[in-house]
Amino acid sequence: MEIMNDEFYMALALDMAERAQGQTHINPVVGCVVVKDGVLVGLGTHLERGTAHAEVHALNMASEKSFGSTVYVTLEPCSHYGTTPPCSERLIKEGVKRVVVACEDPNSQVAGKGIAMLREQGIEVDVGLLQERALKLNEKFIKYITTGIPYVTLKTASTLDGKIASKTGDSQWVSNELAREQVHTLRHRHQGIMVGVETVVMDNPHLTTRLSVEGLSPIRIIVDSKLRIPLESNVVRDGLAQSIILTTEQMDVSKKEQLHEAGVTVISCGDGPRVNLSLALKKLGAMQIGSILLEGGGTLNGSMLEAKLIDRILIYLAPKIIGGINAPSSFSFEGSEWMKDAVRLESLEVEQLGDNLCISGIPVW
Amino acid sequence: MEIMNDEFYMALALDMAERAQGQTHINPVVGCVVVKDGVLVGLGTHLERGTAHAEVHALNMASEKSFGSTVYVTLEPCSHYGTTPPCSERLIKEGVKRVVVACEDPNSQVAGKGIAMLREQGIEVDVGLLQERALKLNEKFIKYITTGIPYVTLKTASTLDGKIASKTGDSQWVSNELAREQVHTLRHRHQGIMVGVETVVMDNPHLTTRLSVEGLSPIRIIVDSKLRIPLESNVVRDGLAQSIILTTEQMDVSKKEQLHEAGVTVISCGDGPRVNLSLALKKLGAMQIGSILLEGGGTLNGSMLEAKLIDRILIYLAPKIIGGINAPSSFSFEGSEWMKDAVRLESLEVEQLGDNLCISGIPVW
Repeated sequence: MEIMNDEFYMALALDMAERAQGQTHINPVVGCVVVKDGVLVGLGTHLERGTAHAEVHALNMASEKSFGSTVYVTLEPCSHYGTTPPCSERLIKEGVKRVVVACEDPNSQVAGKGIAMLREQGIEVDVGLLQERALKLNEKFIKYITTGIPYVTLKTASTLDGKIASKTGDSQWVSNELAREQVHTLRHRHQGIMVGVETVVMDNPHLTTRLSVEGLSPIRIIVDSKLRIPLESNVVRDGLAQSIILTTEQMDVSKKEQLHEAGVTVISCGDGPRVNLSLALKKLGAMQIGSILLEGGGTLNGSMLEAKLIDRILIYLAPKIIGGINAPSSFSFEGSEWMKDAVRLESLEVEQLGDNLCISGIPVW
Repeated sequence: MEIMNDEFYMALALDMAERAQGQTHINPVVGCVVVKDGVLVGLGTHLERGTAHAEVHALNMASEKSFGSTVYVTLEPCSHYGTTPPCSERLIKEGVKRVVVACEDPNSQVAGKGIAMLREQGIEVDVGLLQERALKLNEKFIKYITTGIPYVTLKTASTLDGKIASKTGDSQWVSNELAREQVHTLRHRHQGIMVGVETVVMDNPHLTTRLSVEGLSPIRIIVDSKLRIPLESNVVRDGLAQSIILTTEQMDVSKKEQLHEAGVTVISCGDGPRVNLSLALKKLGAMQIGSILLEGGGTLNGSMLEAKLIDRILIYLAPKIIGGINAPSSFSFEGSEWMKDAVRLESLEVEQLGDNLCISGIPVW
């Protein structure tokens, strides 16, 4: 049994925020819990960009019990007028007694201002409770809000000998069902999903989110320098989610028109011959795509890694050895000459999913 | 704090057996604990082939307190005259009251006979306590005693993309110090260590056991179909352990003489062009080598895997991505056409060693 204390309530606020991942797009996920006279009186989470913040929902629920209450919120209450009035002002107006904040606003220009506003009005504010968990929950938001570049999660599934398919290209299936369900949960949590055109040509995937409950499908982003994509591809025709093709000035121009007519957005990223991936991410960021799940083959994975455009790597490992010298690898690129120069992952986490493993880490550049 | 019960004492017997792994060669490791009137009165472990069994050491220590005692032993007491008299006879003679056995003798021809002897004399016998741990401890012994073929543990250390070196061949270091210390512990626990001649040519290793304490170095076994091994190699010249070269009828015969003079055993295994690995293991088994640690490169690992000669696979994974399409892989072989036909590992265990992982499993053929 968990012991009742500040962490007990903040953990609930974090749980609510965690469950909302994917539905706030470029906004952070935030949870809020209001406690008065020893009991929960209000709960809230931010649901969708442009709608009420977590604090507002929780204070609405608490109603007049907000007065004299303690409010647990996973992110510093905002201090500025955006699409909604500042939450700090609302907390002051309601007469709350104490506010516990997990982490400051990551945007350094506004960080601390919401907290300062509360303190000026004599409200007791504690900052930093379960901060690490709160920061990780919003790692995508933090990257995007501070750089304008989408947060990229690379996901790959390989055998123990680093292969993503057999020598004949067969990849059904590398990982087990638990791992595949986790991948669909990841799709829900990212605004975009990126693959190379080769994957579309070979597998003709839908790249949608398929789970035992409904989920949000990400925008399909296809890297296709010459516009080789077949017009009858599922991502062009199925209408299940928006599709964007990243290409170059060397593209087939007539194909561009046909794709446009089919409702696909085509974006040119450099003179070619290959898509300038750095530029591509900037353009996607400008379109308010704040997070991308990269499910590339070895070549796209390798290019993204070489360009240092990866923020997190998730490797699902199946307990198998497939062999085949030319069977495709999870990462196909020029590579370093010396072992000491290999790309290292830090903040390593390992999760066992049945007989599969998920290894997650942050590449160090 | 552990609670005192039968497991409490059997766990100690198993700990003693575990620590003796490597020093009993083709004999099993066995631990024995004698308890009388609520206290430990005797401890013993089998130390070396041809010397006293665990029960004898423990009963010697217990002396007259053996009478009426409970004896915990990790393997069924023997019932036959070998180099030493049967332990069951000794237990009867000492007048012990109860014997707790972790597992039966794996040799089906004698299994149960020791236990039956004890029961006939009215001694209470319980079998099967912590049996799984006891069986795993002697998995090498069990394979060898039942088949005459050495137990082969394949050990490899790779990056997350399945590479054991960079494209230039640099492999220092893939894994971290903790992993490397574990590998030297593995060397102590195997009678032989096997590599391909390519490893000797490239790295000129000693293949000895190097730890912060002294350990036993395994017999060096080099797979070298034509006898390409340089005569000035460390494994030929250093005298730190015995060396055996597995070759074929296509060997350089004059080289064989020179190797023989240097004290190296050369064994021909088939007509070639490649060493018949199955035959090689039979010949090594006949030389009473009961366990081999395979530290091959990708080619030897692949060949041993294809020939289904591997009993356990240990993969040390470092959190790195090195790339390089032609950088050597942990397993280099023809491989399956379909993912479903990949070699699966079962009884999977995962251990975290700092930021490295050790994945261990048993291949399913």
